[in-house]
Amino acid sequence: MNLPLVITMGDPAGIGPEIIAKAFRDAPEPTRGCFVAGDVAALRRAAQVVQGDTGVPLPVAEIEQPQDALHTPPRCVPVLQAVEPAAALPPFGQISQAAGRMAGQAVFWAARAALRGEVGAIVTAPLNKAALAAAGAPYDRFPGHTELLQAEAAAHRGVPPDQAPVRMMLANDELRTVLVSIHVSLREAIERVTAANVLQTLRIAHAALARALPSAPRLAVAGLNPHAGEGGLFGREEIEQIAPAIEHARREGINAHGPLPPDTVFMRARQGQFDAVIAMYHDQGLIPVKYLGVEQGVNVTLGLPFVRTSPDHGTAFDIAGTGRAAPARRLAALRMAQRLIDAC
Amino acid sequence: MNLPLVITMGDPAGIGPEIIAKAFRDAPEPTRGCFVAGDVAALRRAAQVVQGDTGVPLPVAEIEQPQDALHTPPRCVPVLQAVEPAAALPPFGQISQAAGRMAGQAVFWAARAALRGEVGAIVTAPLNKAALAAAGAPYDRFPGHTELLQAEAAAHRGVPPDQAPVRMMLANDELRTVLVSIHVSLREAIERVTAANVLQTLRIAHAALARALPSAPRLAVAGLNPHAGEGGLFGREEIEQIAPAIEHARREGINAHGPLPPDTVFMRARQGQFDAVIAMYHDQGLIPVKYLGVEQGVNVTLGLPFVRTSPDHGTAFDIAGTGRAAPARRLAALRMAQRLIDAC
Repeated sequence: MNLPLVITMGDPAGIGPEIIAKAFRDAPEPTRGCFVAGDVAALRRAAQVVQGDTGVPLPVAEIEQPQDALHTPPRCVPVLQAVEPAAALPPFGQISQAAGRMAGQAVFWAARAALRGEVGAIVTAPLNKAALAAAGAPYDRFPGHTELLQAEAAAHRGVPPDQAPVRMMLANDELRTVLVSIHVSLREAIERVTAANVLQTLRIAHAALARALPSAPRLAVAGLNPHAGEGGLFGREEIEQIAPAIEHARREGINAHGPLPPDTVFMRARQGQFDAVIAMYHDQGLIPVKYLGVEQGVNVTLGLPFVRTSPDHGTAFDIAGTGRAAPARRLAALRMAQRLIDAC
Repeated sequence: MNLPLVITMGDPAGIGPEIIAKAFRDAPEPTRGCFVAGDVAALRRAAQVVQGDTGVPLPVAEIEQPQDALHTPPRCVPVLQAVEPAAALPPFGQISQAAGRMAGQAVFWAARAALRGEVGAIVTAPLNKAALAAAGAPYDRFPGHTELLQAEAAAHRGVPPDQAPVRMMLANDELRTVLVSIHVSLREAIERVTAANVLQTLRIAHAALARALPSAPRLAVAGLNPHAGEGGLFGREEIEQIAPAIEHARREGINAHGPLPPDTVFMRARQGQFDAVIAMYHDQGLIPVKYLGVEQGVNVTLGLPFVRTSPDHGTAFDIAGTGRAAPARRLAALRMAQRLIDAC
C-alpha cells in the first residue's frame, strides 16, 4: 500500500493541532507518509506553540495533494488546506462557530478523500460538540466522528446510513472491545440489544479482526444483565436476543462465545482467552478499557470502507495553546492505523 | 475488642471447607481468634483433603462456644457444630438438599451470634443457589448472603427488611465500589436509580468508610448513562435523581462528588482521587474491581450492625475435594474483616 495517511486537524481552539505538531516533531517514524487535513495557519500557530518547548523551529509545509506527503522530509508537518481559511484564527480555549466549521470541514474532506481512495486511513483529532453545533448544518447533525463517517460512507454507496452499519471498537495493548451501541441512554441501549444488532456487531467485528489477526478471532459476547441473566432470573435478553445471535454467528463460522457474565469477561479477555469482547453498551466496554489509564486507548471505527482510528481524548480547551498536551495517544492511534492498513 | 471472628462453612459439597482448612493451616496469624460455624465432620473431611498436600495432619477441634476460639492453638481448625449433622456427608461436587440446608443453617447461626454480640465479624464461604433452593424454606427465600443477613438484622430490630437497608461493597487493594443495587436485571437496576436509593447508598458508604478511614471519605458517584448523560442528551437520571441525591448528601456533610462519567470514574478512583465509587448497578462496579483478576476481591456488606465480609468466589463444585482451591481470597476477606473490626 502506498497511500498516505491523513490526520484531521480537530478543533483549532483545542489541543488537536499542537498534539499533531508534537507527534511530527518527536516521532518521525510513525508520522512518515502522514499529512494533516486542516488549516495551514492553525498548524503554523500550533508549531510555534510546540517550538516554544525546545527553541528548534518546526517547519509546516503546505502540500497540494495527498501523495505529496510521501515525499515530505521528517520533522516537518505537511498540511493540506482542506478547509476554508478563517479571517482570523479562532482563539485557543474558546468555543466558536469558525473553529467548529473548520474542524467539521476537515473531517468531511478526509472522509471523501478516503472514499476516493486517495488516502489509506484517517486518524481524527478531537471535535468540540458545542462548536460543531454553533457551526450549523451539516456539522451539527452528528453526535461525533463515527456517525459523520458512517453517513458519508453510506452516501458514497447510495444507501441510507442504517444500511452501512459501523461499530466502535476501543482498544489498548491488552483489551479490544466492540460496542453494540454508543451514544444513547442506558434505557435506549437496552432496547438496542436485539438479536439483529448483536449479530451485526459480531459480523463487523469478525470481518475487521479476521483481517488484522493471524488466526480466526475468538470473540467473547458479554451478557447484558448481572451474571449474564442467571438463567433468566435477572433478565431475559441473554436468552431471547443474545444467545440466538451467537448461535447464528457460529453457524456462519464466527468463533463467538457467550453470553458470558459481564463482570469477568473483560478480565478473561485481558488474560488472553479472547481476542475481543462484544460489549452490550458504551460503559460496559469502556470502563475496563479505560481502567488502567486512558493514555493508550485507541478508538477504531469498524465497518467503514477505510481505516479510521482516533486517540481517545477530548479537545482539552483548558490547556490548549500551552504546549502541555502529550502526543502519546495520537501516536498510538497512528500506529494502530498503520497496523490496520498493513493488515488490509 | 476481644470477640472471635466466625467463618461460615459454606456448601460442604463445594470448596468452602477445604479453603477454610488451608487458611488455618497456612496462615496462623490472620486466622488467630477465628472459628468455623458448620459441621465438624465436613471440616474433618476437608482437613484430610488438605493434609493430602503435605502429609502433615491438620487437627480439627470441636469447640462449645465462640470464646473458645480465642484459646485454640495455631494450625488447628476450631469448629462449632452450628448445624444439624447429616446422616452421611454430602458428596463433593453435587447439589444436594442436605448440603444446602447445612450451608444455610451455618449462616443463620452466624448472623444470630453476631446480633447477640458473641462474634465480632462474619466471614462467609460460598453458597450454592440450587442447593439452597432444594433445602426449601427458609433457605430458598434469599438470592444470597446479603439478603439473608439483611433479613436477620431487620428481624432482630423488629422492622421490615427495607427499613434495615444494606449495600454491597466490593473492594480490592486499589478500588472500593459500593453498589446501589445488585442482583436484579439491568432494566430493574435503572428503576432503582432513584434519589432516595442513591442518597441511602451515600449515607451507608459514608458511615462505614468514615469508621475505617483516617479522614472523611471522598465518595465519587458514577452516572448511569454514557458521559453521565451529557447534559440530558443521553438520559435524564443524572439530572433528576443522582445530582439531587449528591446535593442532599453534601448538605449532610458527606464529601460526595458527581455524577461523573462512568467510563473514567473508576480509573480516577484507582489513581487515588477518591476513596470509593458509588456504582449505579452491579456490573458498573464489578467490572473494574474484577478487571485485574478476582484473586483479591472482597465483598463487604455495609449497613449491618456487624462486620461481614466474604471472598469473591463461588462453590467451584468442579474442583471441590481435590485440594486445588487456593485460600488467597479467603485470607483477604479475613484480613479485611479484621481491619474493619479494629476500625469499629
